[in-house]
Amino acid sequence: MKMTYDMYSPIDAVLVNALNEDIGSGDVTTAALIAEDHFSEARIIAKGDLVLAGLPFAERVFQLVDKNVKFKMVKGEGSRVRHGSIVARIRGKTKSLLIAERTALNILQRVSGIATLTNEYVRTVRELKTRITDTRKTAPGLRYFDKYGVRTGGGRNHRYGLYDGVLIKDNHIAAAGGVGKAVARARSNAHHLLKVEIEVGTLSGVQEAVKAGADVIMLDNMQVERMKKAVQIIRRGNPDTTIEASGTIHLGNVRAVAETGIDVISIGALTHSAPAADLSLEFSSP
Amino acid sequence: MKMTYDMYSPIDAVLVNALNEDIGSGDVTTAALIAEDHFSEARIIAKGDLVLAGLPFAERVFQLVDKNVKFKMVKGEGSRVRHGSIVARIRGKTKSLLIAERTALNILQRVSGIATLTNEYVRTVRELKTRITDTRKTAPGLRYFDKYGVRTGGGRNHRYGLYDGVLIKDNHIAAAGGVGKAVARARSNAHHLLKVEIEVGTLSGVQEAVKAGADVIMLDNMQVERMKKAVQIIRRGNPDTTIEASGTIHLGNVRAVAETGIDVISIGALTHSAPAADLSLEFSSP
Amino acid sequence: MKMTYDMYSPIDAVLVNALNEDIGSGDVTTAALIAEDHFSEARIIAKGDLVLAGLPFAERVFQLVDKNVKFKMVKGEGSRVRHGSIVARIRGKTKSLLIAERTALNILQRVSGIATLTNEYVRTVRELKTRITDTRKTAPGLRYFDKYGVRTGGGRNHRYGLYDGVLIKDNHIAAAGGVGKAVARARSNAHHLLKVEIEVGTLSGVQEAVKAGADVIMLDNMQVERMKKAVQIIRRGNPDTTIEASGTIHLGNVRAVAETGIDVISIGALTHSAPAADLSLEFSSP
Amino acid sequence: MKMTYDMYSPIDAVLVNALNEDIGSGDVTTAALIAEDHFSEARIIAKGDLVLAGLPFAERVFQLVDKNVKFKMVKGEGSRVRHGSIVARIRGKTKSLLIAERTALNILQRVSGIATLTNEYVRTVRELKTRITDTRKTAPGLRYFDKYGVRTGGGRNHRYGLYDGVLIKDNHIAAAGGVGKAVARARSNAHHLLKVEIEVGTLSGVQEAVKAGADVIMLDNMQVERMKKAVQIIRRGNPDTTIEASGTIHLGNVRAVAETGIDVISIGALTHSAPAADLSLEFSSP
Amino acid sequence: MKMTYDMYSPIDAVLVNALNEDIGSGDVTTAALIAEDHFSEARIIAKGDLVLAGLPFAERVFQLVDKNVKFKMVKGEGSRVRHGSIVARIRGKTKSLLIAERTALNILQRVSGIATLTNEYVRTVRELKTRITDTRKTAPGLRYFDKYGVRTGGGRNHRYGLYDGVLIKDNHIAAAGGVGKAVARARSNAHHLLKVEIEVGTLSGVQEAVKAGADVIMLDNMQVERMKKAVQIIRRGNPDTTIEASGTIHLGNVRAVAETGIDVISIGALTHSAPAADLSLEFSSP
Amino acid sequence: MKMTYDMYSPIDAVLVNALNEDIGSGDVTTAALIAEDHFSEARIIAKGDLVLAGLPFAERVFQLVDKNVKFKMVKGEGSRVRHGSIVARIRGKTKSLLIAERTALNILQRVSGIATLTNEYVRTVRELKTRITDTRKTAPGLRYFDKYGVRTGGGRNHRYGLYDGVLIKDNHIAAAGGVGKAVARARSNAHHLLKVEIEVGTLSGVQEAVKAGADVIMLDNMQVERMKKAVQIIRRGNPDTTIEASGTIHLGNVRAVAETGIDVISIGALTHSAPAADLSLEFSSP
Repeated sequence: MKMTYDMYSPIDAVLVNALNEDIGSGDVTTAALIAEDHFSEARIIAKGDLVLAGLPFAERVFQLVDKNVKFKMVKGEGSRVRHGSIVARIRGKTKSLLIAERTALNILQRVSGIATLTNEYVRTVRELKTRITDTRKTAPGLRYFDKYGVRTGGGRNHRYGLYDGVLIKDNHIAAAGGVGKAVARARSNAHHLLKVEIEVGTLSGVQEAVKAGADVIMLDNMQVERMKKAVQIIRRGNPDTTIEASGTIHLGNVRAVAETGIDVISIGALTHSAPAADLSLEFSSP
Repeated sequence: MKMTYDMYSPIDAVLVNALNEDIGSGDVTTAALIAEDHFSEARIIAKGDLVLAGLPFAERVFQLVDKNVKFKMVKGEGSRVRHGSIVARIRGKTKSLLIAERTALNILQRVSGIATLTNEYVRTVRELKTRITDTRKTAPGLRYFDKYGVRTGGGRNHRYGLYDGVLIKDNHIAAAGGVGKAVARARSNAHHLLKVEIEVGTLSGVQEAVKAGADVIMLDNMQVERMKKAVQIIRRGNPDTTIEASGTIHLGNVRAVAETGIDVISIGALTHSAPAADLSLEFSSP
Repeated sequence: MKMTYDMYSPIDAVLVNALNEDIGSGDVTTAALIAEDHFSEARIIAKGDLVLAGLPFAERVFQLVDKNVKFKMVKGEGSRVRHGSIVARIRGKTKSLLIAERTALNILQRVSGIATLTNEYVRTVRELKTRITDTRKTAPGLRYFDKYGVRTGGGRNHRYGLYDGVLIKDNHIAAAGGVGKAVARARSNAHHLLKVEIEVGTLSGVQEAVKAGADVIMLDNMQVERMKKAVQIIRRGNPDTTIEASGTIHLGNVRAVAETGIDVISIGALTHSAPAADLSLEFSSP
Repeated sequence: MKMTYDMYSPIDAVLVNALNEDIGSGDVTTAALIAEDHFSEARIIAKGDLVLAGLPFAERVFQLVDKNVKFKMVKGEGSRVRHGSIVARIRGKTKSLLIAERTALNILQRVSGIATLTNEYVRTVRELKTRITDTRKTAPGLRYFDKYGVRTGGGRNHRYGLYDGVLIKDNHIAAAGGVGKAVARARSNAHHLLKVEIEVGTLSGVQEAVKAGADVIMLDNMQVERMKKAVQIIRRGNPDTTIEASGTIHLGNVRAVAETGIDVISIGALTHSAPAADLSLEFSSP
Repeated sequence: MKMTYDMYSPIDAVLVNALNEDIGSGDVTTAALIAEDHFSEARIIAKGDLVLAGLPFAERVFQLVDKNVKFKMVKGEGSRVRHGSIVARIRGKTKSLLIAERTALNILQRVSGIATLTNEYVRTVRELKTRITDTRKTAPGLRYFDKYGVRTGGGRNHRYGLYDGVLIKDNHIAAAGGVGKAVARARSNAHHLLKVEIEVGTLSGVQEAVKAGADVIMLDNMQVERMKKAVQIIRRGNPDTTIEASGTIHLGNVRAVAETGIDVISIGALTHSAPAADLSLEFSSP
Repeated sequence: MKMTYDMYSPIDAVLVNALNEDIGSGDVTTAALIAEDHFSEARIIAKGDLVLAGLPFAERVFQLVDKNVKFKMVKGEGSRVRHGSIVARIRGKTKSLLIAERTALNILQRVSGIATLTNEYVRTVRELKTRITDTRKTAPGLRYFDKYGVRTGGGRNHRYGLYDGVLIKDNHIAAAGGVGKAVARARSNAHHLLKVEIEVGTLSGVQEAVKAGADVIMLDNMQVERMKKAVQIIRRGNPDTTIEASGTIHLGNVRAVAETGIDVISIGALTHSAPAADLSLEFSSP
């Protein structure tokens, strides 16, 4: 994890921004009621079964507010925890804990929610060689965190953005004048360390893609039966091709998709529709 | 909406950041395949029934990438649209459309998802005077957008952050030495334009809060039957008090809660667990 | 004070900016004349009677320039000090002291000037329950510091900005169609933790405001005799209303204003016209 | 004036920051009460006699909030205006005018206050060749604006910061081992386009400075009689030397100081203690 | 070119920063001497034979200073121009031209210098299929510009940074426990759109890399004779492998290297040691 | 050196930016292959004879990536080192060393290249009193570093930018109406701590400049014989004038130029055309 890189990390920028958004010109309740030298202990507790992810971000939020807050992880990052489990213990100025609480939980609940959902998919295709990956359908500004949640839940990342992978879609094909020309032009124009992936939705598209020598072929929104045929065509044409499936894949059909021999299944819902994991912060009784 | 404020708007900062996150050093596929002077038309289409929200943000994304892109809203912000409806038409350089597409959809799908879920709650309590509001449980850095989605779906906003409302919770009470002292100290220390809200979980807490003269009383995690009693106690004690309910409220019980006479129901799930609305961008066939 | 919040503090941003403004590409005199390893002691001395405020900001300036500079406060923040008093002792690289000196004094002199003037007002209304508050008439970018100076001088803060308090003025009333409609609309549209304040300049305005149920009524630019009548009207109408006075209030009439029974007196001059307190930095003779 | 440089101007950074400070998450009063399409006219009026300065900054504030606001200057920048004069007329969305009002006035009142005070000094030494200049004693972050106010009031600027002028003070002299060595080292180490100024407080210091060949000699905190002698010594020693006086100079003695033949008088109070000029914004009656 | 992307472009950030660096608190010479309304015409002239690159950046510098400056390109970006050629004509406020001049020329001279040197290499290997590419040895903060210069001179870009290409070097191999393990682990851990390149310096290393199935093999610092053998080994083992050469390649041996059948030659000197192209700005005689 | 100033230094901004440019969303090779707890030792080695400059910047790059990396300078900043010399030893996480390596070397090679070239000029004019200085022809954004390299190589700095020195060129003269008027106006309008330099290309220009009383006269693009005459004219007219030469000066003629009695020789090539010094980082064999 990139957490050890001190100054140029995108993590701090996001967390400081989130703190500013919440604190603004100051926590008026805490300022009115809590003495500067009042100290408390608190614990973060799972309020449901979940895969824990983002605890280092929560810790960092407390440290950004007050570097003297002590934060002790009780459960490991990526572990599956039961409803009622204590996942971290925190100790420090009451004021600091109250100010950091909501921002810390907001990021922790989001990332754990993504990890928990991802993990369901990953366990569904267990024993198969298929990779479950995310997409670029992440919350604006939170891609680092969302993709981290996917990895922590046992999933894999797809390309990070538009800049680190070639993925040719319908409109690129139309503008380039066909599958063959598109693949050839991408290979010629992109730098020589990038593979060329192309998205196709029909079996004739699959055949063209194989012929064009695409490194990766994405089967877009295909039914399972058609996918099986597509996999056969590709394996026969060029066994080294990576095959990806995307679109209308859910927990109910993901195993069937994986069993067709697909290498990679990419799922937008992992990051755009995972419900928040339920975690809360409780202060110890005095 | 704050969209008319040109330079100091938090909107552009978020959208530019999201674009940078996705584009990085450049869209390698588009650079390899699409001619500078190739133009296209496209439309954004609802792939499900939804409440439309965030279209001006989507438009702004396209303009940030290329100010010459034409973006025409077909459906109104806040309107309920059916699966298959065209909600906007876009025209401009193919290159610009492809580069902006994902970032524009990511924000639009998130905000419409929030509006759609909020609207379900709002319609469930329709005819009653109860306000459905959000909480501070928003995605880090996206509070402006998330709260906008709630408003557009017919909900109301709670305080924006820690700085524009006094809300006394358990730990404030414990540290202050009781409900009475906490309310008194908040009233004395906060500036004179802020009301004082206090959160209580028991009927005895309700009685103390009424006695302390709290302006707003939040009933935390109470069963509906207990809420009814709490409302009676408060209305008898001080009819001007605003009563808020929060915790374990869902579509199945929100109407029952509202019917107890509660003024405000605040729901975290509106912003932390709304699934993305399904919208996609399709290029016109050439 | 917010000084313990490490990274998201507005304080550092302002102080670093002020240092950059003064140092630019480097202190050419010090670079030409002072050896890297030359050390000095210095002290900050009051050159007049004043209320000391902003010493932690001055200390922070020295630390931003060189974290090894030792800064020892001799007088307490908020204390009244006499001409000639030493208020702080500083020790470190001569180079660092010379580079930080002007920026540290500029902020210290401004904030102490505000505290000193505020304190004169506060002492003038001593024994009365009236709050002396600031306004939004602060130097651009320095609101946090200016409002801190007011508090340190014994005054109280009004709302921080346009976002954390409702204050209805003439033009809002005109646009809304009258006092009653304005108050009602504000109560209905603003979130439920904000009070509604309205500014009126005549006794008939006062009566309308009482009738409309405003939480806070500001008497704008009224003579003392008229204020007395306004206070009577308000107390008779709704004894819980907070009454504020503003406009043409100075050290000569502030006590008379307070004695009318006004709760809050807000004074723009505290922050826009306080002369700098006279403080200087002197190096110890070698 | 630097107002024509579009993107790298420090002006916008300061004004946007000031707007953010005031507006934060939004003007809650205006949002609650003013319709999006309500328009108004307003005028800025002098509430005292003053030298007008900073009107382009006030205009820029309105434009930053809403580029469609029309702002018409009625009085010229730098002109002396009477109590009651209209200095500008503004027209646009009521909402935009209300949101920009305070920030625009805050900067205008500060800069006009500085220009007005400076102008009093300048008129006091009129017909003499002496320059009245500012110092580095400006409000943190506002040096550009403060120095602009001085120029607009008829004064002149001293060096902008530590980086664009050599000014040797006591401690530099002590660390360098005497006046002669300090001047020589400064001349040798600073780049060849900078003059060397040295500050002295005694007549023997003056003699050393002349002997050392300083380009500019600053007489620090001297009585007028002693200044006369200092001027004689310097003029006799090197007639090309520029002579500057600083410290304990006020409106009561500035002419006497100037009449000694001093070239430059620098005055900290111009920027750190000028009271705000009284200007207000009034909406036209409907 | 990315110049059409308005707000998120790295180009403006670099150019504005360069302008600030040069202008700081203002061009004192121009402020002292040039009237606001003085206009001039000027032209940029090549003072040597060169490949022109970066003219849009120079134009942008002038526009950032003053959007009313007219800039007309006379020679095309990427064209080879002779000593004495006029490459652009500029017209606008004299003040604006003088302030922008140096910054505009600094970027234009650097980028044209890189394009000119790159073009010499490209012409040397003309008719061969070998790509001449840059490396990551660019000036800090100027990678976008340096890589643009290489492309404009006819060269090709290598990966942009550490994030968009896998390149395994000695230490990665040592840490991974051998060539085979390193390639396998990279293929398994990196996302599925990235190829795997490995750097080897010996023929046995070449054999291992072929066996490991590397997509791209870089021959590091090899003599031409040894390169020939390496190419044979690779072509025999896996004809689809891309072969890159790097290290100690200069204009004197680049053609011999290319003739061995190498696909890609990467050269650090293109960006770290290209002398500035000689271009100057001349004002027209009045 | 400004390295001790912690927070407002331009150094960190440039280095962090350079790291971001290279690392982006992460070093994919290192992430795939290097274990978090793998440690290495490495050394920076000179691959040619050079003047070492910029080692503290290289050290800072490693610390920015990982504050636990140990960096030990073996050779002193500014020392001349031989091909094969070890100049620094580094130890830390392998991952951190690999990620920082290229950025650290890029800045070190640039700055050492500038110091090495500068030093050649300085040694060529050794024993003479002439200063070798840089110009404003630096890489955009890197002026601090480029000028530091010149100083470390034994050269001197000219003005830093347009703001800290008056330098009148052809166009200023034309716009002002002649040499005399230009010098007079500059002296009158610039602040009183700046000298006035004027650039002239002919002997009649020289005579006018002397007559106008310029503090510094720059001989632009003159042949050595003409320079001799110019120096005579100036020395006769005003012996205190500083004389500078610029344009078409290279290692072959710089000593002849210096021997004419010129005080300052400014050379653009020091910063815009110095080839990178050859330095590399080698890991110790395990």
